Amino acid sequence: MQKAQIGLIGLGVMGANLALNIAEKGFRIAVYNRTSEKTDAFVAEAGELAENIIGCSSLEELANAIEKPRPIILMVQAGEAVDQQIEALKDIIDADDIIIDAGNANFRDTRRRMEALRDSGPRFIGMGVSGGEEGARHGPSIMVGGPREAYDHIKPVLQAIAARYKGEACEAWLGSDGAGHFVKTIHNGIEYADMQMIAEIYGIMRDGAGMAPAEIGKIFERWNKGRLNSYLIEITAKVLGVTDDKTGKPIVDIIVDRAGQKGTGRWSAIESQSLGIPATAIEAAVAARSLSAMKDLRIKAEERFKIETGSIETLDDARIAMLEDALLAGKVIAYAQGFAVMTAASEEFGWDLPLAEVARIWRAGCIIRSQFLDEIASAYEAETEKTDLLMTDAFSDLISRTQGALRKTVAESAVAGLPVPALASALGHFDQFRLGRGTANLIQAQRDFFGAHSFERFDAPGAHHGNWS
Amino acid sequence: MQKAQIGLIGLGVMGANLALNIAEKGFRIAVYNRTSEKTDAFVAEAGELAENIIGCSSLEELANAIEKPRPIILMVQAGEAVDQQIEALKDIIDADDIIIDAGNANFRDTRRRMEALRDSGPRFIGMGVSGGEEGARHGPSIMVGGPREAYDHIKPVLQAIAARYKGEACEAWLGSDGAGHFVKTIHNGIEYADMQMIAEIYGIMRDGAGMAPAEIGKIFERWNKGRLNSYLIEITAKVLGVTDDKTGKPIVDIIVDRAGQKGTGRWSAIESQSLGIPATAIEAAVAARSLSAMKDLRIKAEERFKIETGSIETLDDARIAMLEDALLAGKVIAYAQGFAVMTAASEEFGWDLPLAEVARIWRAGCIIRSQFLDEIASAYEAETEKTDLLMTDAFSDLISRTQGALRKTVAESAVAGLPVPALASALGHFDQFRLGRGTANLIQAQRDFFGAHSFERFDAPGAHHGNWS
Repeated sequence: MQKAQIGLIGLGVMGANLALNIAEKGFRIAVYNRTSEKTDAFVAEAGELAENIIGCSSLEELANAIEKPRPIILMVQAGEAVDQQIEALKDIIDADDIIIDAGNANFRDTRRRMEALRDSGPRFIGMGVSGGEEGARHGPSIMVGGPREAYDHIKPVLQAIAARYKGEACEAWLGSDGAGHFVKTIHNGIEYADMQMIAEIYGIMRDGAGMAPAEIGKIFERWNKGRLNSYLIEITAKVLGVTDDKTGKPIVDIIVDRAGQKGTGRWSAIESQSLGIPATAIEAAVAARSLSAMKDLRIKAEERFKIETGSIETLDDARIAMLEDALLAGKVIAYAQGFAVMTAASEEFGWDLPLAEVARIWRAGCIIRSQFLDEIASAYEAETEKTDLLMTDAFSDLISRTQGALRKTVAESAVAGLPVPALASALGHFDQFRLGRGTANLIQAQRDFFGAHSFERFDAPGAHHGNWS
Repeated sequence: MQKAQIGLIGLGVMGANLALNIAEKGFRIAVYNRTSEKTDAFVAEAGELAENIIGCSSLEELANAIEKPRPIILMVQAGEAVDQQIEALKDIIDADDIIIDAGNANFRDTRRRMEALRDSGPRFIGMGVSGGEEGARHGPSIMVGGPREAYDHIKPVLQAIAARYKGEACEAWLGSDGAGHFVKTIHNGIEYADMQMIAEIYGIMRDGAGMAPAEIGKIFERWNKGRLNSYLIEITAKVLGVTDDKTGKPIVDIIVDRAGQKGTGRWSAIESQSLGIPATAIEAAVAARSLSAMKDLRIKAEERFKIETGSIETLDDARIAMLEDALLAGKVIAYAQGFAVMTAASEEFGWDLPLAEVARIWRAGCIIRSQFLDEIASAYEAETEKTDLLMTDAFSDLISRTQGALRKTVAESAVAGLPVPALASALGHFDQFRLGRGTANLIQAQRDFFGAHSFERFDAPGAHHGNWS
């Protein structure tokens, strides 16, 4: 029997779809699942793709079914299950075989695993895969970290299965060890901020202007043809237009306002803090999800405070254009924060992350895919050195043009009592960022007063103390 | 020779001052420093307190000089130095002796150290000490975590050296293992937020209203007699009134706006994220310090954006009262976030943190000391169950009265381009907190659309999917 070029362990929705994607692109793939019923069912339901799939009922069978050096994708739950699979595989496969963790691992785990396998093998790759079920099946965005030559070995498969943006495959090797999983984490952090800002604008329209979901959906549909064009805006328009089968009401009015979250949003906030890089728009978005989960408390609080949420004048075209620009400005700042975190991490962990490349492989396949990312890629390509996204020519022009709208939107919402935490955090970031002389001089004076922490002077080098007594 | 009741290792400023404080209260203390010149100098300069101080030139000498069971305070640099001292002491002292780490340790290190010593001893205490040099010398706020009976043994010393608020000593045992260091970390996180909000109001007065430092100082001086009365407001008034000896200019105008930070602010943000509890005002304050450090980039950004920072009308009495209320509202919300983080940590780590007690021992000695904390203590005492600070009677009234001012201040600053990131984060938190129906329903619709994450319905239990196609 002809051997497979690659293996895959874990036939949950993501794993199954990724396996079908690989098989469809003409590669032979050997698959294994802990419960072999699942493996059998998967092969049985694969239709004509089954001819490229070898179902295996043990890890030994899987190992025997793959050409050496064997690349084996793990698509199991992030965490302990990954360690267990590595442990089980270690004794069966060879030192130059390649284990590819394609789950949502914390990049620190990826670094630890890679370090543990460095001398003994097998080789290890941490691979971020974005795009949900659909992406896995028809083309995800793929972010790879690990030994370059191991990546080169699997590159033909990744090139074939990845999403395409104007013909270019959305996959890349981004750096050593945890680079791929780190970039995936920041991708998700940015996704949180992007979704939260959209929800805030929706809130202004719903609670401020009293608009119906379908009406709001139409505006997002229009925006999707402009500068905001992106997958998230597209699906926002769609879900706002959907009617609930059961009640005949707009589905968004039936859905409870309590959002779930996985670890990646939180991780991106934690890593930003660890690196000392502001990511306040992402933090605000993570906090918003946490607050959304405290629904019982919020209902009690509404009862207790009885503060009217004010209305905003009817949204005429000018005001709708203002909200569009505000969302665009907020988005630019949130993305700038995310990219700044990657820049710092790249230095901290010695990855030399190619920022333009990161933006390029996010243009299709992943949740934040958009034209906007093509502009970010171009902006970074045009720069001779690594700089803040806000300082690139393209984006400093954009933000100069749209910041007034963001300002006005935050101000009106503050007065009306409409929460815009992520948009306000973005504005706060920008206004500090563009202020040559901030107010930390007062903080330094206080710190020297109570803790003799010293301060710098404008007129002399070195550390100084005030004469406070 | 009469033995000492307690020992102390590390005669830096904090250690030396704490030792003098202990000696002054009539306890005999044995002290040791790695370089014995420092020990000799310390004893020589201790004046009449020297009769209560035994200078030791080795750890063995230190151990021999203290009555058993020996309590030994470590006041060395947080991190590896603590581990090294523990290692060195372990072979010299007994299993029921007590090592007290009084540095700014990460509570996770404290937990690890306690766990490592649990079976073999010596006993271990993690003790947060706040109040800077002055506090250490004349009365700090002391937050203790560790075995209760070890605390009971050193309690007489702590009672004697702690700050006093209306006669009550500002020290308490807060819970097992890392409880004391955790509470100290959150104390510092709140301190960051408090200082940042003060700096934001100063910025409005300086850059918006064009006021001189002395003028601003007078307003803070007045505020210090009202609801904002606190050490931080008091020293803000003071530093704004100080003239630089060298130039004759106000000292705050000579100090560079680049703020330093130690780990604790960042840690409190990281722990809040790990616990899934919003602490956005603290995060905004930490981010503001990070941004302040990027001064070169800010100067370039100001040049590039050339956006006018608008002026705010002259600050008449009504507007000054508005800023006072805004600061008060922001402060309440930031403290509520900090206390919510402690509530969650208490549950997570099984500490049963006494929140009223925490507020009580912060009323004097520490940097955020204030009357306000007396009100927080009363508010928590009045509650039958653990609840959000914003939901207590006293603070929901206060926030109801002041939220309008916070709203207006954030709005005007947004329009004028004056950064108020911590105040805006506080407002964003409040406006989400008091909104029974938020906008996370849209986020859940999106997540179900792209990732089949499911959502809850208002009209039926369980997890549901939308019919999106």
